[in-house]
Amino acid sequence: MRPETDDKGAVNGFRASVAHVSEGELLQRIFPLLQTSQSALLGPGDDAAVVAAPDGRVVVTVDTQVQNRDFRLRWPNGYETTGTDVGWKAAAQNLSDINAMGAEATSMVVSLTLPGKTPVAWVEDLARGLNTAIKDLDAVECSVAGGDLSGGSEIVVTVTVLGNLAGRNPVLRSAAQPDDVIALAGTGGRAAAGFGLLESGHRMESLDEEQMALVKNQLRPLPPLWAGPAAAKAGAHAMIDLSDGLVRDAGRVATASGVVVDLDPAAVEHLAEPLQSTAELLGANAEDWVLGGGEDHGLLVTFRADTRLPEGFVAIGSIYAGEAGVTMNGDPLKITGWDHFAH
Amino acid sequence: MRPETDDKGAVNGFRASVAHVSEGELLQRIFPLLQTSQSALLGPGDDAAVVAAPDGRVVVTVDTQVQNRDFRLRWPNGYETTGTDVGWKAAAQNLSDINAMGAEATSMVVSLTLPGKTPVAWVEDLARGLNTAIKDLDAVECSVAGGDLSGGSEIVVTVTVLGNLAGRNPVLRSAAQPDDVIALAGTGGRAAAGFGLLESGHRMESLDEEQMALVKNQLRPLPPLWAGPAAAKAGAHAMIDLSDGLVRDAGRVATASGVVVDLDPAAVEHLAEPLQSTAELLGANAEDWVLGGGEDHGLLVTFRADTRLPEGFVAIGSIYAGEAGVTMNGDPLKITGWDHFAH
Repeated sequence: MRPETDDKGAVNGFRASVAHVSEGELLQRIFPLLQTSQSALLGPGDDAAVVAAPDGRVVVTVDTQVQNRDFRLRWPNGYETTGTDVGWKAAAQNLSDINAMGAEATSMVVSLTLPGKTPVAWVEDLARGLNTAIKDLDAVECSVAGGDLSGGSEIVVTVTVLGNLAGRNPVLRSAAQPDDVIALAGTGGRAAAGFGLLESGHRMESLDEEQMALVKNQLRPLPPLWAGPAAAKAGAHAMIDLSDGLVRDAGRVATASGVVVDLDPAAVEHLAEPLQSTAELLGANAEDWVLGGGEDHGLLVTFRADTRLPEGFVAIGSIYAGEAGVTMNGDPLKITGWDHFAH
Repeated sequence: MRPETDDKGAVNGFRASVAHVSEGELLQRIFPLLQTSQSALLGPGDDAAVVAAPDGRVVVTVDTQVQNRDFRLRWPNGYETTGTDVGWKAAAQNLSDINAMGAEATSMVVSLTLPGKTPVAWVEDLARGLNTAIKDLDAVECSVAGGDLSGGSEIVVTVTVLGNLAGRNPVLRSAAQPDDVIALAGTGGRAAAGFGLLESGHRMESLDEEQMALVKNQLRPLPPLWAGPAAAKAGAHAMIDLSDGLVRDAGRVATASGVVVDLDPAAVEHLAEPLQSTAELLGANAEDWVLGGGEDHGLLVTFRADTRLPEGFVAIGSIYAGEAGVTMNGDPLKITGWDHFAH
């Protein structure tokens, strides 16, 4: 699959690709599309940016999306991924990692590796996607503080996000305690169902409203950025964002904390139920999507059992002492989900 | 050119590539190779890292190296780039950007995009290269705080570095003043000469000691990390690191500050002189290397003319009022140097 999206690149009366403009010209097109925030003390344009770190500490995470690995420019069902989709997802998945520490994002730096034929308009859309995700996900202190442009043979988007703990302790994966409740904020399995639709022969125009929403969960995930700081304030023991699958990520908490994470079958069933009709359409299993799908970027948190869960959290299981692992109603679950080199 | 370096990947009795190991296993091989620093309050292994920002602000920069664009795995002269070379350079060029703000690096996050056939041993060498550069360049507060691994069809290495201003103002490109002196710390033109040798038919075993040193300036540049903070303390007006070429980067200072940067031909000649014999060998022009070459990551700084230059700086020209541009002895110079999409 090659980045043949030139039909979207009509700029100044011709279809400009990045090979037609200098790096400086491309930056001059991108910068005006990015809002600034109070945290950005010095924005793009110098050797480095300067960002406020009022807490005296800074949280930092990095994540990369690679064409044909993390997204397709054209999906089997015919959908053509927009720059806005890619920018949104790149921003959202990193904002989610900051959220999972109980912090709030303050800035983002972005490295784009682009084939020369990438339309300038597609790159402008990517900048819009970064900006829109920041705005719509309500990361009010965050803005794009800087970046880097490179040529390459496939699109690679690397986003680094910085965050502010505002005096709180970071919430780690490793502090889940026996008898904790484990709770989820945000959705689960929906992005995996959306992926199934995009990979299917069912074209977008044939999908109903609910199925379109599932596709959107895959293309433009909605990490609950309010949930990380709220959970930290409520005394969360352990926290992780669901990026690689519920069982895999719960397994990381189990391993790091040396506990058993036991999922409640009723909770899994509750998450799977709205996905049943789509699973039937595709001959797939809705429960597998819930257990193995991760790209919703929901937030998985353990609390003391007597904690009043912050609004928007739903209990989905409990923590037990025992050999580290994930079970459902006591039965061991196989760790499934995304491994970057396994396919 | 394909990443056919499997002959370096003998691990556990067979030549393991990253496709043979899980992401978690690869991380477990990399982590022990990385030293920690006092700044790393929480290192790799959670959703995000936590780094000290004692100044209440954090400097941040990102830069990417792409296989066959920024480095070759095998050069025309037969040299095979090691993982250590790539790791060193990825670290060094980002540490240089922090230096150019007058700051000191506190941490680094690293995103690696790797073809499945990349030898595990090559990736381990890359981690060693990051670590060795930090150590040998004396970035004593810095360590690798986190990272990300992805699959892809070519090697892409993105490094984000954070830095501490320690109470100083960041030194920008935009504050050069007429009558300033402009001075260089570190080397100029040597990395370009080394690139010329690597791209030539002259095999490594035929090179003399000085030529080997030029190749090393290309593969493992030596940004003068002492110079940025020293210049800031000495009252530097404007500062930039030489990443894209002396004339191009001086032009950025000129444009941002609205001044003329006039280079002293004697200073350029002084930098070119030791490169003459290599230029003759390759039928190249040593002065072009000095004016157009940037990857030495020297530091270009303007000071008030009566400033006593910090040790290690050499005056190479003066700043004048006038239409922004770069001249030598008053004659306009064409902006040449690296543009990521122009080739």
